Amino acid sequence: MSGKVLVAQGGGPTAVINQSVVGAVLESRKFRSVDQVYGALHGVRGIIDEDMVDLTQETTHNLELVAETPSSALGSTREKPDAAYCKEIFKVLKAHGIDKFFYVGGNDSSDTVRIVAEEARKAAYDLRCIHIPKTIDNDLVVTDHCPGYPSAARFVAQAFMGVNLDNAALKGVYIGVVMGRHAGFLTAAAALGKKFPDDGPHLIYMPERAFDEDRFLADVKAAYEKHGRCIVAVSEGIADADGVPIATKLAEEIEHDAHGNVQLGGGALGDLLVELVKRRLGLKRVRGDTFGYLQRSFVGCVSDVDQREAREVGEKAVQFAMFGDQDGSVTIHRTGWYSVDYRLTPLVDIAGKTRHMPDEFIADSGTDVTDAFRLYLRPLLGRGMPDAYRLRTVPVPKILKKD
Amino acid sequence: MSGKVLVAQGGGPTAVINQSVVGAVLESRKFRSVDQVYGALHGVRGIIDEDMVDLTQETTHNLELVAETPSSALGSTREKPDAAYCKEIFKVLKAHGIDKFFYVGGNDSSDTVRIVAEEARKAAYDLRCIHIPKTIDNDLVVTDHCPGYPSAARFVAQAFMGVNLDNAALKGVYIGVVMGRHAGFLTAAAALGKKFPDDGPHLIYMPERAFDEDRFLADVKAAYEKHGRCIVAVSEGIADADGVPIATKLAEEIEHDAHGNVQLGGGALGDLLVELVKRRLGLKRVRGDTFGYLQRSFVGCVSDVDQREAREVGEKAVQFAMFGDQDGSVTIHRTGWYSVDYRLTPLVDIAGKTRHMPDEFIADSGTDVTDAFRLYLRPLLGRGMPDAYRLRTVPVPKILKKD
Repeated sequence: MSGKVLVAQGGGPTAVINQSVVGAVLESRKFRSVDQVYGALHGVRGIIDEDMVDLTQETTHNLELVAETPSSALGSTREKPDAAYCKEIFKVLKAHGIDKFFYVGGNDSSDTVRIVAEEARKAAYDLRCIHIPKTIDNDLVVTDHCPGYPSAARFVAQAFMGVNLDNAALKGVYIGVVMGRHAGFLTAAAALGKKFPDDGPHLIYMPERAFDEDRFLADVKAAYEKHGRCIVAVSEGIADADGVPIATKLAEEIEHDAHGNVQLGGGALGDLLVELVKRRLGLKRVRGDTFGYLQRSFVGCVSDVDQREAREVGEKAVQFAMFGDQDGSVTIHRTGWYSVDYRLTPLVDIAGKTRHMPDEFIADSGTDVTDAFRLYLRPLLGRGMPDAYRLRTVPVPKILKKD
Repeated sequence: MSGKVLVAQGGGPTAVINQSVVGAVLESRKFRSVDQVYGALHGVRGIIDEDMVDLTQETTHNLELVAETPSSALGSTREKPDAAYCKEIFKVLKAHGIDKFFYVGGNDSSDTVRIVAEEARKAAYDLRCIHIPKTIDNDLVVTDHCPGYPSAARFVAQAFMGVNLDNAALKGVYIGVVMGRHAGFLTAAAALGKKFPDDGPHLIYMPERAFDEDRFLADVKAAYEKHGRCIVAVSEGIADADGVPIATKLAEEIEHDAHGNVQLGGGALGDLLVELVKRRLGLKRVRGDTFGYLQRSFVGCVSDVDQREAREVGEKAVQFAMFGDQDGSVTIHRTGWYSVDYRLTPLVDIAGKTRHMPDEFIADSGTDVTDAFRLYLRPLLGRGMPDAYRLRTVPVPKILKKD
């Protein structure tokens, strides 16, 4: 029996998502039963529109170079297919004689694969459907971690390492806003930028813990008094005890302020927190950055472990499809410190579920991570992590200003 | 004759400013005439407070590691000394028997050195004063470029390279705000992230050209229609034809808008431009990032050319002080493509002056750079610049959706 393979990418790009596509493409091309390997442009949208490219006619050499290039080379989409949409997908796959479907993506994409697989089964069409995981949020269940997360985590750690050095030279309060609406894994990675006990980030706010303004201000004040400065890592998704996003809450509060010269809104969480600290603590040098798209797309900050694993989940997806008779999602399982193995997990166990930072990764204070988290993340960051060094200062005795 | 050497750092940190300090310290330690090498903590403030450390008691090995660490290891300051302040500096230097003063910094720091040198001359005190250049803004005159700029430029180029790939996968308008209040060199570096003709940034706005909202909107519209997306690099310092900062102007306009749900202010230029594009062009996926402190402090994105030159200006400063009899600022002069030599330029020729992007570096459109700029910047970015690769797509013939 022979047939065609289709590969596509969905959701937000990562630094290593192309590794997975290339892994799947190169592995597929080794099998005699595979006639051609297609790629759909811009995810499921490209399938619906029959907008596909023939990856059998791509050189191995160029595929290897594309693998090292961040973002989704086939394009991506935010479209979330429902059952009807999936039926349309299924029609196209059938028309082109595609019998293997690989979709690289996060939670929504895993659900897409699940529905396509179900529709195929109903129609008694022998279509093998495999979900290849990726997400910088690291919020897929079952898998130890998600390809894409380690590289984004490395960017966040290196960013805080630098911001800490900058802030030590010119002291003040610094607030860095990190991606992650529901899971705090990426924000927590800021802790890996810390070396000396007095280094920042001094406070880490994850969406897994309710955010309280007064508590936040007291935390900042205490850290500032202790270190003469304070670095805060905060997840964009923080909310109060009732689940109200802090960005929304603060925007209202500050707008209603009588002095209201500075009026902010939207998702400008960083600016709002900066304003809050300035007003309520009366501190002058308060700065904030929202890391934005840099943290998932920056070229030149990638974990070699992440690259290798993203490649392998692509390869393994094809092997599971060729040598097995089940659909599923490729999951990563830790077998050493550090080594992993891969399994195929049923789609229903993954699709549409969200993983959060487990309690054992969050310190009792709620504003730091535990050593268990450090042990979890460190090997994922890969080789050649930069390191920050300090002068070991010997004071010069004073002559004019002796106390 | 023997004496002491004092080294300090002023202004915003860079990725390679410690190279200059270490260059000056290690070179000073080679001279028999040097008793001790001191470092002042937090720039001129540390001199005034007699807050100094003995760098003669630091290991060579640790100094080499500190050299590779971004930001100012001795700390920095934003204090801008006047003549009275400089007299205080001078008193401390004299009390400690310091006869060589090296100050690493930008425009303000060069002026500090000039005043200290003048005060010393008036008091017939034989103090050699050398300014060692650094600034990510690249706005010092005479010198071909400023240490610190190449590494920040590399960060900006790599950031736009990634943002372009991300935006190609999920199309829309993206606006990235880059540091540089008066000079557009750093924003212009975004162009070096571009490889294919349709890559972004499609539009680059530098403070050297007056910014016009209507023209901007027309530019974005045209680029969007051509590419189905648009990436904009904009300097934080852009102003209109009357010199009014665009951030101030837009904040007022948008606040007075009748629909005014989103009210922004302060320096949130990126958010304001995003809002402007959304409202006036009716585009949906419009995103903006302000690169903020990451562009000057990120650990792990540095130009080896920048590291080497920052080290050399520190070394040369000491050599000029030891073998010459003049104060001055160390300047870099291009002698090949690419090689440089160093000279000592009189302080009065540098101090307090600002360099802007020359006309030959800005395209006639006012929203792009020229090849002259590309030739100027490329060698400064150093070895191992990442590269972005694309699939060479061969379309699959349509079966269901034949037109």
